Amino acid sequence: MTGQIHGGDIYTNACRIDFSANLNPLGMPKRVEEAACEGVRLSAHYPDVRCRALREAIAGNEQLPVEWVLCGNGAAELIFALACAVKPRKALLTAPGFAEYEQALRCVDCSVTFYPCRESSGFALQEDYLQYLTEDLDLVFLCNPANPTGLLIDPGLLEQIADRCRERKILLVVDECFNGLLEHAEEVTLKGRLGAQPGLFLLRAFTKLYAMAGLRLGYGLCADVELMERLRGVLQPWNVSLPAQMAGVAALREREYVVRSRAFVAKEREFLRQSLEELGLKTYDSRVNFLFFRGPEELARRCGEEGILIRDCRNYRGLEPGYYRIAVRAREENCELLRVLKDILEGGYEDRTGTGGAEGDRAAQL
Amino acid sequence: MTGQIHGGDIYTNACRIDFSANLNPLGMPKRVEEAACEGVRLSAHYPDVRCRALREAIAGNEQLPVEWVLCGNGAAELIFALACAVKPRKALLTAPGFAEYEQALRCVDCSVTFYPCRESSGFALQEDYLQYLTEDLDLVFLCNPANPTGLLIDPGLLEQIADRCRERKILLVVDECFNGLLEHAEEVTLKGRLGAQPGLFLLRAFTKLYAMAGLRLGYGLCADVELMERLRGVLQPWNVSLPAQMAGVAALREREYVVRSRAFVAKEREFLRQSLEELGLKTYDSRVNFLFFRGPEELARRCGEEGILIRDCRNYRGLEPGYYRIAVRAREENCELLRVLKDILEGGYEDRTGTGGAEGDRAAQL
Repeated sequence: MTGQIHGGDIYTNACRIDFSANLNPLGMPKRVEEAACEGVRLSAHYPDVRCRALREAIAGNEQLPVEWVLCGNGAAELIFALACAVKPRKALLTAPGFAEYEQALRCVDCSVTFYPCRESSGFALQEDYLQYLTEDLDLVFLCNPANPTGLLIDPGLLEQIADRCRERKILLVVDECFNGLLEHAEEVTLKGRLGAQPGLFLLRAFTKLYAMAGLRLGYGLCADVELMERLRGVLQPWNVSLPAQMAGVAALREREYVVRSRAFVAKEREFLRQSLEELGLKTYDSRVNFLFFRGPEELARRCGEEGILIRDCRNYRGLEPGYYRIAVRAREENCELLRVLKDILEGGYEDRTGTGGAEGDRAAQL
Repeated sequence: MTGQIHGGDIYTNACRIDFSANLNPLGMPKRVEEAACEGVRLSAHYPDVRCRALREAIAGNEQLPVEWVLCGNGAAELIFALACAVKPRKALLTAPGFAEYEQALRCVDCSVTFYPCRESSGFALQEDYLQYLTEDLDLVFLCNPANPTGLLIDPGLLEQIADRCRERKILLVVDECFNGLLEHAEEVTLKGRLGAQPGLFLLRAFTKLYAMAGLRLGYGLCADVELMERLRGVLQPWNVSLPAQMAGVAALREREYVVRSRAFVAKEREFLRQSLEELGLKTYDSRVNFLFFRGPEELARRCGEEGILIRDCRNYRGLEPGYYRIAVRAREENCELLRVLKDILEGGYEDRTGTGGAEGDRAAQL
């Protein structure tokens, strides 16, 4: 089996606090947990293959037709289903980006090109992205807000990208899995374009917003009902578990929790950003529940030794060692992370492996 | 969305008793339910992408190396993953058979041929099956015990089939998802051949044996670790939920429950078989927790009107209308089914739709 390339691997790495998985710091709402447990008690039955109650709740919440909603065993399942159903010959991704887009496209022997997000522009998408949208593309994956940087795509540029994809008949898949944790979520989504652009597919997750990563639940939104039908054809009928379906219905009722989460995340993110900058660590313009920053090369390993898991981003395509991603958590945990980082950076911890003796010096150079 | 073609659709069909889904009639063990709920409570974390604790428990239980075990979001997910990872050009199925084999193969544009199981031989695989194993095949799906008939493949014939597949380098996938509910499960499995035949892949399910269909959990067994790696490559990393992983570990401890289930199923199945025969309904040689039988064409609809869901098998390839599958349930429920069947067959119920007025007469002809 391959090793884990993602955050959240608390199974390999014993840790006190996990900053490597980007989940809502307020935790799973109690009523969501109760609904999932009720789902467990009913699980001697198969789940509804059409996810009717859940899809109707999502459609009502999004104010979109229920035919435009497709549920997945996490949004990640839908990325693979898209590749399998569409079988694109050529696709465009951004680097760095979520590894599963490329993995899924490789499964169907798709040729993949990359737009390089550059450090010099703070990793933001620039106007030159439009030049990458060539006629020969079948599919584009964009992530907004982006993973691992947390950056938003400039709204004007995003509209131009969507227009260009429509003109050139490129299927535009926008991964909005972190949208729900944005302060102004509704202003950022491309949802309003779905009806006019059947070649637009939006990915959404319950996983992050409701901190229910272990239950697995995501969905896709698209007005091309023929494509939705093809997607169903490459998925097993019972792909969404009964606990996940029931948890999803309960989650959509948690409106006050969502409002509270967004405010909490915004406040703690800015506290963390300022504190990291004060430690001499360069941060980037994240607007969501995680922060991307630059630090000494062995920082993740050193944090791990202190029981703190942070996401070392060196295995992202297009990133050199020395970039990290941390989730925004509660104040006390954030302070504990900052304390550990400060001690490491000031050379207060010995390097226990003996392989990176000059760590303290290197950190001081940043 | 497509309509449901499977049993267990209690969401469309309000029913008192569901005989259409083939689950252990003893229900989900309490400790499995508790473990799944504990999994829900921990689900603010991602599941272990490598399913380590679960795979180790399965490997220990099967007495096989852990590298030979791959877990899925139900065994059905692995059927699609196999098609996607292997990309066979030509495959052999049996008709009738589980619809997902064909659906998954069609996703990768595989040409599919069928061995027709014939009513004249009680739907059992015959020696002429060997002639269907031609050099140009890449993959074969067999189901043992078979769905929807419940029949076992003759052990001598199965060995010949496996030998022929090995000689001709055909990947042999044997779906043993109902194996656990056989009285002599260990005598029927091809598990003993795995080490000598890396081109043998076995499918297993927790779903049926532990009545945990809503939680989704199955696994594959294969000694070809390179194939196992390719399968991981076409699956999302977090395909098995945390509640399912924890339920699976708990389920493997339920040894007494399994022994009790097998005896219970065997006894009730024979009671049902004899009772159906006494009603003039022809049954076939099922050895597992469901029975396949022949009856009047409108029987499923008429049962539905009485709140009893049975599986109308007319949408199975190779079957004409008038074949049904029922799960073996507890005595009281089985008796209620028999009472309803008897009343329908004796014309005791009016046909409420008015479209099949001669139903009673037709039944009497069987």
